[in-house]
Amino acid sequence: MGKFVENITPMSEDFAKWYTDIVIRAELLDYSSVRGCFILRPYGFAIWENIQKILDKKFKSVGIENVSMPIFIPESLLQKEKDHIKGFAPEVAWVTHGGSEELTERLCVRPTSEVLFCSHFHNIVHSWRDLPKLYNQWCSVVRWEKTSRPFLRSVEFHWQEGHTVHSSPDEARSFTLKMLDLYANFLKENLLIPVILGKKVESEKFAGAEETYTIECMMKDGKALQSATSHYFGDGFSKAFDIKFTNRDNKTEYAYYTSWGLSTRIISSIIMTHSDDDGLVLPPDIAPIQIVVIPINVNNEEIVETSNRILKLLSEKYRTKLDVSDQSAGWKFSYYEMKGVPIRIEIGPRDLQNNSCVVCRRDNRRKQSFKIDDILNSVGKVFLEMKEDMYNSSLNFIKSNMFEMSSIDRLGDISGFVKIPFCESEKCEDVMKNRFCMSPRCIPFGDNGNEEANMKCAVCGNKAKNMVYFAKAY
Amino acid sequence: MGKFVENITPMSEDFAKWYTDIVIRAELLDYSSVRGCFILRPYGFAIWENIQKILDKKFKSVGIENVSMPIFIPESLLQKEKDHIKGFAPEVAWVTHGGSEELTERLCVRPTSEVLFCSHFHNIVHSWRDLPKLYNQWCSVVRWEKTSRPFLRSVEFHWQEGHTVHSSPDEARSFTLKMLDLYANFLKENLLIPVILGKKVESEKFAGAEETYTIECMMKDGKALQSATSHYFGDGFSKAFDIKFTNRDNKTEYAYYTSWGLSTRIISSIIMTHSDDDGLVLPPDIAPIQIVVIPINVNNEEIVETSNRILKLLSEKYRTKLDVSDQSAGWKFSYYEMKGVPIRIEIGPRDLQNNSCVVCRRDNRRKQSFKIDDILNSVGKVFLEMKEDMYNSSLNFIKSNMFEMSSIDRLGDISGFVKIPFCESEKCEDVMKNRFCMSPRCIPFGDNGNEEANMKCAVCGNKAKNMVYFAKAY
Repeated sequence: MGKFVENITPMSEDFAKWYTDIVIRAELLDYSSVRGCFILRPYGFAIWENIQKILDKKFKSVGIENVSMPIFIPESLLQKEKDHIKGFAPEVAWVTHGGSEELTERLCVRPTSEVLFCSHFHNIVHSWRDLPKLYNQWCSVVRWEKTSRPFLRSVEFHWQEGHTVHSSPDEARSFTLKMLDLYANFLKENLLIPVILGKKVESEKFAGAEETYTIECMMKDGKALQSATSHYFGDGFSKAFDIKFTNRDNKTEYAYYTSWGLSTRIISSIIMTHSDDDGLVLPPDIAPIQIVVIPINVNNEEIVETSNRILKLLSEKYRTKLDVSDQSAGWKFSYYEMKGVPIRIEIGPRDLQNNSCVVCRRDNRRKQSFKIDDILNSVGKVFLEMKEDMYNSSLNFIKSNMFEMSSIDRLGDISGFVKIPFCESEKCEDVMKNRFCMSPRCIPFGDNGNEEANMKCAVCGNKAKNMVYFAKAY
Repeated sequence: MGKFVENITPMSEDFAKWYTDIVIRAELLDYSSVRGCFILRPYGFAIWENIQKILDKKFKSVGIENVSMPIFIPESLLQKEKDHIKGFAPEVAWVTHGGSEELTERLCVRPTSEVLFCSHFHNIVHSWRDLPKLYNQWCSVVRWEKTSRPFLRSVEFHWQEGHTVHSSPDEARSFTLKMLDLYANFLKENLLIPVILGKKVESEKFAGAEETYTIECMMKDGKALQSATSHYFGDGFSKAFDIKFTNRDNKTEYAYYTSWGLSTRIISSIIMTHSDDDGLVLPPDIAPIQIVVIPINVNNEEIVETSNRILKLLSEKYRTKLDVSDQSAGWKFSYYEMKGVPIRIEIGPRDLQNNSCVVCRRDNRRKQSFKIDDILNSVGKVFLEMKEDMYNSSLNFIKSNMFEMSSIDRLGDISGFVKIPFCESEKCEDVMKNRFCMSPRCIPFGDNGNEEANMKCAVCGNKAKNMVYFAKAY
């Protein structure tokens, strides 16, 4: 099938190599001359732009406003919240010189912007009338990681970080969950990725947060990938940054704070949920090219003309491409399969006679013939079916790799998610890490009721605190 | 007229203070705790987002693709092109530590990304089939400026930087001018800012460029503001970065390189071209709120209902807001005038009787009454007239402040642009700077022909090289 497919290592042979091959061959990303930093190439960046467009619209529909905070954080500002600095100090990049002068105070390149937002909220929040403030910024952040892997881990990465302040703990906590829900719907409906929602155990909470909620996804190798998080801070940061407001009773109160984020890491989640040995498989909503039209014979004028007509019919509504280059049709088939284009339309001489064309789905290779005059409608239906099938197929995979156990005796080298009653002790977490390379992913919603009150930890047998999902993780 | 207007210093009293008052009172931007870095607040950032949306669409329509390059540049990479490093080394921020470790090589936070793009082009350009590459990125860059002023000068600022490589000098040079033209059209048609296009004199060229083209705008105080630039590099960077390709004759050739950019500085250009003593005046295309609907009496149910009906009619096509807060109508009038909202719609009891409403333009305060049923159409016409009037009014101002002189004897303390025959010597440039605080803005297009061959420099009387515009500049 041509050179593009041959170069992708089969998933079963080496999953990590399969992943990297897809990322590089599909030209999503390239290595740069800067340690740990990647270049997002046009095709990869277009995926991120499509993600941004959908999410940004969802954010704005719930009243969130975009802002831009400085790229730097003075060291003294980063130190204001003690848990926060403890979490981030080991992994920040420090600017010490401006031009030829040494700075009197070091600046770090933001690893996340809680302290910048809180310092701004301190200035602009005075009365209950100023609340809530629902802010977001799209930017890149820097964390001095020792190792890097495309989209999964890098020194610089793109994300959005939302930061909100509220006048009551209830409102803030419910906003934290509202954003988790917004992310979950985005993953399910637009990215076709099934999600496992829950709360992080104490040891996995964000630095400085009271509660961290997470969206965990299961990749095709059974590993977990944390795809978005939402944090509730109570009034801890407000106390550190003196964010006070006069409430309706004319009393001074500290404000309640949340933050939530989703990064380009989600692209690795998309790849490892949907792709196969022939390359990328992209969900239609975020595919840079949704439909590619391929004339079987580019020297047949009538075929090219008809291909153009089809392109025109579809391009009002979809992101389309017509390939009339001199490569063979077979080469083009495997090339666009490798690039993950959701729908390929083929037109050959026989199709021309029937005034029809062949629509081929990337996800399951199913081919169907449709009348050209009705192609816009037909393609719309195919997209709907494809989206449902892609989601269900991922959901089935996940369901068949989720386990529940009351003891770790028969755990062995499992791939997938294992739910166990857990005491949340450091010691038992270490056992899970050292023996099974598994970390606590989340306390799933709906499993923290009183029913579990009498359960025993699957590791040590002492009283369990919660049902907890464990998995090997990215 | 309420507290908002009172707080703006009149332009005639103190132009600089007038500018800052508008920026702060209209909540475009705030100072941060980081030296030289500003916070773009929701209203200011929304203007930048609207600018991005329009420009990005224009870029994509000529085949430009968005990418993302690393935020850091290793010192050795920055040094590869000698003129470039000379220009930027004094004003970069250096990262020397990652976490607690000292780096073996310093990294600067990108002041601009020529070297990163060229280093990528070296990797991906091999054959004439790979050319042209038309890339752009939206990002922020850092320059260690000693002083800062909102939108005009800051340590960090947002911009887009385009970088392209081509297979011939002609193609590259004509692309440089094509982008200048695209910017000029954007300024004229969307921002309603008249432009003066031309080429920079040698001393004002971008570090490492063969030719720099510029868009100069005249602010209401007569000063020039450089609003966008486009650079032609020839094959200089390609030689430094070894960007070679095999041409159609199967011979190896260096590629030809261009870059071009526009930053948030354009927002200061918008402010100082259109605004007045009552606050901001925004061009409709980039105004975050294009129409504000104000019921004269918020306690009259019928008025509020009708206001909602008008809002609904307009919000399909325009960015709208209805203000039913308990502030007085007069307060609201001045508040939204200060915020620069292009159209205000008022509905009082008498309007209700006539099934009409009053449309008031921000730029000239002209009021007209229109039937509600036809409001969408009427408002469309008002916007068209407003755009034409705003552009023409700025154009008239500029025209009456442009001068041409053959000698500087009678120059005096002029405010505006002065065109003189000029020898381009450092000495004469110094005279212009020291005596008149004026710098060479550009060699305007169409003025470099042979007709000027015999002209004498307006400063020294020696042979002139070009007609050159001089002005005081931001």
